[in-house]
Amino acid sequence: MRFDIITVLPGLLESPFAHSILLRAQKKGISEIYVHNLRDYATNKQKSVDDYPYGGGSGMVMSIAPFAACIEKLKSEREYDEVIFMTPDGETLNQPIANQLSTKKNIIILCGHYKGIDQRIRDVYVTREISIGDYVLSGGELPAAVLVDAVVRLIPGVLNDETSALSDSFQDGLLDAPIYTRPVDWNGHKVPDVLLSGHAAEIEKWRFEQAVERTKTRRPDLLD
Amino acid sequence: MRFDIITVLPGLLESPFAHSILLRAQKKGISEIYVHNLRDYATNKQKSVDDYPYGGGSGMVMSIAPFAACIEKLKSEREYDEVIFMTPDGETLNQPIANQLSTKKNIIILCGHYKGIDQRIRDVYVTREISIGDYVLSGGELPAAVLVDAVVRLIPGVLNDETSALSDSFQDGLLDAPIYTRPVDWNGHKVPDVLLSGHAAEIEKWRFEQAVERTKTRRPDLLD
Repeated sequence: MRFDIITVLPGLLESPFAHSILLRAQKKGISEIYVHNLRDYATNKQKSVDDYPYGGGSGMVMSIAPFAACIEKLKSEREYDEVIFMTPDGETLNQPIANQLSTKKNIIILCGHYKGIDQRIRDVYVTREISIGDYVLSGGELPAAVLVDAVVRLIPGVLNDETSALSDSFQDGLLDAPIYTRPVDWNGHKVPDVLLSGHAAEIEKWRFEQAVERTKTRRPDLLD
Repeated sequence: MRFDIITVLPGLLESPFAHSILLRAQKKGISEIYVHNLRDYATNKQKSVDDYPYGGGSGMVMSIAPFAACIEKLKSEREYDEVIFMTPDGETLNQPIANQLSTKKNIIILCGHYKGIDQRIRDVYVTREISIGDYVLSGGELPAAVLVDAVVRLIPGVLNDETSALSDSFQDGLLDAPIYTRPVDWNGHKVPDVLLSGHAAEIEKWRFEQAVERTKTRRPDLLD
């Protein structure tokens, strides 16, 4: 699976893609992640990628031309399944969307910055708009990294343990049960007896009950 | 405002904190961000920070001792307002939570990895559990960066334009209206006439109507 990410801050994305799961996925050849510097596609002398908003107001607006040039170049090289714009007014990312995107082949991700991007980029090029949550960030770079991480870890072969991704929170509509490791007694705080019992069926029952209880208490909306 | 982030992957957080708003906030002395390597607090010979889960199951569990040692050390140096654990089963981050946290002074953020952390760390040390959304990621590092970015940009003096943060999506309960910059006509795709009219009151009316319309279409839940 290939990601092409277009941003004015390519440096910001260096370390997230060079560690952990995302590094492993690239080393294994399961995923390719390319970060494109939008400024390389600026056509004017000042290499500017933004301009003042029509109608006034604070903040700068990202211009059409550099995005158009970069997207057109990429599209001339291969077919893309989606051109995704990371934006707080997009559909909210959730596990089903991540699952669905993990079956795609080539995805372009546009990172907004400043006040936002010219609406016509969205009208003409963008096929899907995704938000990672109801809060405002400095730009679309961290959201792009979050999206790539959520998607790539679902591709078969990326995680070491095939069962891991399926037993995560949200995949079965329940939050996880509490987990414990050594020591059994830490300053008087003990591991629940059932987990030390060795009775697989009882442990499974306890975990299910805990998961239901935690979901009821914390996220009753997930049970609807 | 000071953040102390505890992680097994300090390198992953290098570039997000060295760019854009977060770099500027640190240069201006408005925010301090420290990333602590959990492995430096491992006490055993192998410097391990995780162990097998009691009761069986896939994935490793992060041990109590290294987190406890790092948190205790930090707490011996200053008072903390919150010890936040980034976890998909926490309360979902939104703009009111970001606003609220932006008034705090010192915050510790714990990043989970692998299958998760020993429940007793949560019971004993954590004062608040926050999720950035209903999806699973490889670890708490990107969520920590997202949280810090959402919060730091709200601290007065961080953004160049004081009005910027308040006119963002979510701050007034509405999504943003479409925005446009030059050229007026791009391959036949034109900027709406009203934005070129110069009538401030009409422009404001149009933007409000567009914001309401977009919110109705995309996020009717925000209007409730």
